[in-house]
Amino acid sequence: MIKHALSVTREGDFAQWYQTVISEADLAEESGVRGCMVIRPWGYGIWERMQRLLDDAIKATGHENCYFPLFIPLSYFEKEAEHVEGFAKEMAVVTHHRLVADGKGGLVPDPAAKLEEPLVVRPTSETVIGAAFSRWVQSWRDLPVLINQWANVVRWEMRTRMFLRTAEFLWQEGHTAHASAEEARDETLKMLEVYRDFAENAVALPVIAGEKPENERFPGAVATYSIEAMMQDGKALQAGTSHFLGTNFASAQNIRFQNAEGQLELANTTSWGVSTRMIGGLIMVHGDDDGLRVPPRVAPWQVVIVPMLRDNDDDGALVDYCKTLQQALGRESALGEPVRALLDLKAVKSTNKRWGWVKKGAPIVIEVGGRDMAAGNVSVIRRDRLYRADGKLDSVGTAKDEFVAGVGAMLADIQQSLFDEADARLKANITPADDWAEVEAHFADGNKTPGWLDVRWSRPTGNALDKVVERLKALKLTLRNAPMGQTHPEGQCIFTGEPCVERVLVGRAY
Amino acid sequence: MIKHALSVTREGDFAQWYQTVISEADLAEESGVRGCMVIRPWGYGIWERMQRLLDDAIKATGHENCYFPLFIPLSYFEKEAEHVEGFAKEMAVVTHHRLVADGKGGLVPDPAAKLEEPLVVRPTSETVIGAAFSRWVQSWRDLPVLINQWANVVRWEMRTRMFLRTAEFLWQEGHTAHASAEEARDETLKMLEVYRDFAENAVALPVIAGEKPENERFPGAVATYSIEAMMQDGKALQAGTSHFLGTNFASAQNIRFQNAEGQLELANTTSWGVSTRMIGGLIMVHGDDDGLRVPPRVAPWQVVIVPMLRDNDDDGALVDYCKTLQQALGRESALGEPVRALLDLKAVKSTNKRWGWVKKGAPIVIEVGGRDMAAGNVSVIRRDRLYRADGKLDSVGTAKDEFVAGVGAMLADIQQSLFDEADARLKANITPADDWAEVEAHFADGNKTPGWLDVRWSRPTGNALDKVVERLKALKLTLRNAPMGQTHPEGQCIFTGEPCVERVLVGRAY
Repeated sequence: MIKHALSVTREGDFAQWYQTVISEADLAEESGVRGCMVIRPWGYGIWERMQRLLDDAIKATGHENCYFPLFIPLSYFEKEAEHVEGFAKEMAVVTHHRLVADGKGGLVPDPAAKLEEPLVVRPTSETVIGAAFSRWVQSWRDLPVLINQWANVVRWEMRTRMFLRTAEFLWQEGHTAHASAEEARDETLKMLEVYRDFAENAVALPVIAGEKPENERFPGAVATYSIEAMMQDGKALQAGTSHFLGTNFASAQNIRFQNAEGQLELANTTSWGVSTRMIGGLIMVHGDDDGLRVPPRVAPWQVVIVPMLRDNDDDGALVDYCKTLQQALGRESALGEPVRALLDLKAVKSTNKRWGWVKKGAPIVIEVGGRDMAAGNVSVIRRDRLYRADGKLDSVGTAKDEFVAGVGAMLADIQQSLFDEADARLKANITPADDWAEVEAHFADGNKTPGWLDVRWSRPTGNALDKVVERLKALKLTLRNAPMGQTHPEGQCIFTGEPCVERVLVGRAY
Repeated sequence: MIKHALSVTREGDFAQWYQTVISEADLAEESGVRGCMVIRPWGYGIWERMQRLLDDAIKATGHENCYFPLFIPLSYFEKEAEHVEGFAKEMAVVTHHRLVADGKGGLVPDPAAKLEEPLVVRPTSETVIGAAFSRWVQSWRDLPVLINQWANVVRWEMRTRMFLRTAEFLWQEGHTAHASAEEARDETLKMLEVYRDFAENAVALPVIAGEKPENERFPGAVATYSIEAMMQDGKALQAGTSHFLGTNFASAQNIRFQNAEGQLELANTTSWGVSTRMIGGLIMVHGDDDGLRVPPRVAPWQVVIVPMLRDNDDDGALVDYCKTLQQALGRESALGEPVRALLDLKAVKSTNKRWGWVKKGAPIVIEVGGRDMAAGNVSVIRRDRLYRADGKLDSVGTAKDEFVAGVGAMLADIQQSLFDEADARLKANITPADDWAEVEAHFADGNKTPGWLDVRWSRPTGNALDKVVERLKALKLTLRNAPMGQTHPEGQCIFTGEPCVERVLVGRAY
């Protein structure tokens, strides 16, 4: 039996396993500030890789980056009723701009420095960006406005969980304004596709792109689309959303333009976001009982070289050998970029280093000892296939030059194998269900990883939808999304008995 | 006489000229939120270029990026008395985590959702990062800790000015912990040198690196170093700072380690930062009466191609010709990176486009009309030499292939010429002064651009320093820094009459 690197297994306690990976892979930690985490270098390095790749894709589709204020005056929110209703319960509010001594050796907000109008720490920026759009947009010639911002946002959640739901998180939020509803809808779907492509090809997270039901819409949106990823416990994670806002925000923020005929029209707007939550998804999709496995495209270091130093005179030659290897790797490319190789020379025992990098999930760990060097070899550990059939660590002695020549292909293969493994799991765990009884049976307590059900429904709204949501809630289920590109199915809605309109996915979720 | 593109000249009204450049170059605008600006795509694009180059330099010196919470509990600040004293007057304080209806159609902070301990929106992160260091550092093996974060910070300034002093601004803040004071001092100076190199070689801003006097130290620091740039009105702008914090923060935050001999010691820490203020410096050093001039290394677009479209059938061929040019430019490299060339196809009159890009300060603007195309030519405008001796726009017809082959050299030349121009101005405007009477005479009202004086002083402290600061204040002067690498000067302190210790720079400042 394999003795794994973590003290907890996915099967034993998935929630505890998740926290353990975050801690053992040095991704993040509690900060001491309620609901806020410290993102450590390995975790932040993954985020930087995600940023770089997603930012490139956002720019390639014609968007430019800007920066808008952290603080939003209360009055901006009051203009869009649904929007404020959706966020008011979780807003951090700045009320003072100075501290004074409390006379007891401590500090208190200075009553003489109370703000006339409280400022909200942005939970999302539609309102403040809409105000800018209303200044920028006068004529049809000013449209479309296509912008994006990378920023921190704050939502005061009562129950937090690292990466998945934190009071402060990092994200990008795209905001666009268009001359017509059709163009804005196209934009919404274009960015959904950018997200799907990014999730699948950069993060190796297979996802289902689709439209959220009415009750799951962004507050103030006409339509919300999402990409949904399946975690190894079968739960869904909404990993990115794209919203068609119609003229709701344009109307509240007065974004009007003169069309080619000289008439004044409201613009149609969109917004879309992906956050550090994606790292939570990466962990729960690719992690295993030895820690994290990072897909090469988002790995801060793709190859980590660990010299087996012995604190003797031979160490110098070994380090030189490893430096030559690192330089040779840096000249290779993998997945369209130069290979990122680290030589780990920290004062740590080399077997601890090996397991440290295994837990962190570096795609390839290279160990080099005196014998490897003498033979012109390196010992190669692939993180995606850590053990041999007999349960021993699969460390493969390979000629150094051969390894270097093949490193691009090997990294591409690891990227693909992580995707394939997750994709097979996703596909195997979406099950069609024909009636409500099947739903109840499927989500009975005995089924530990029920995944999602794919059901027909009539897309009810209002009260009828509320009833559906209530029934699902009793089984701890939610409506995820109605996948894009589906053909109109035949048959009846499993909830209402009415003719069905589309298929929708149902599952438990983070 | 040249009719310049801006309505205001530097000589006429420098402050108004600065605001006009920001507005006409589409760099930033007022946001409607007190003291906070919106950074528009061209301004943010310059910041992204600065980030990329500085981030590379920070990583090349062994630092890793992390992310720490936006909110800092009040109690963290109370631990370091000087630090909190320095920042308490300008802190934004979060006191509530929810809004409720006020019964009059508006919203108010919910009295039932008052935070037990108010949270400060970070003005700088020594305290919260120090708390993390105290968890991370146990043994000498854990040192040094070398980290950096890119973040927004908030300082509630009463008088704000775009880029120079805003309530919220963007920056990077590096924080390190070391086993010895010597190593921490070395780090402080190493990062000062990284900043000098970045300012001079990336932003083409010549600077004087030196140590700040005691009264200008960062609150809680043992020593503060800065790079000071000279604006075209002769005033100084502190463009980056590096602080040796000794054991002050380690003591307040309990950052202790077991040394190799098994004894417990306090770590020595440093911090250093560069912010969006650097963009204000760029404007005031490189801007002219036609708008901004962006040094090629930090220009989002280095070459902008403007086809002279005529809304007729020839336009297609002209656009194709320009696309070929854009592609050819993208294969060239300049200053170590691929050339960034934009083809501007917006629905705007081409002369307006030309002047738009001149005002934005794109290093090279290429205009292509039908006749240029027929001759295989392009018309080249270099932003650093816009006019000929006769006052006409200096647009040079050049064979397209010749322009492409020479673009790398031309961009390098523009980068250098902007630096040289600023460097000559800096050097010409630092004047030695031998006594206080010279200082008073030099800064008399008649001298519109007095620059800085270089004076001998005894580096007084405490009350003696306070007196010096008061005398300078009467002339609106401040002590800037004592330049690095100076040889010990002879003579007397011009303030105290005591034997002088070093030379220090004196000037007006932003």
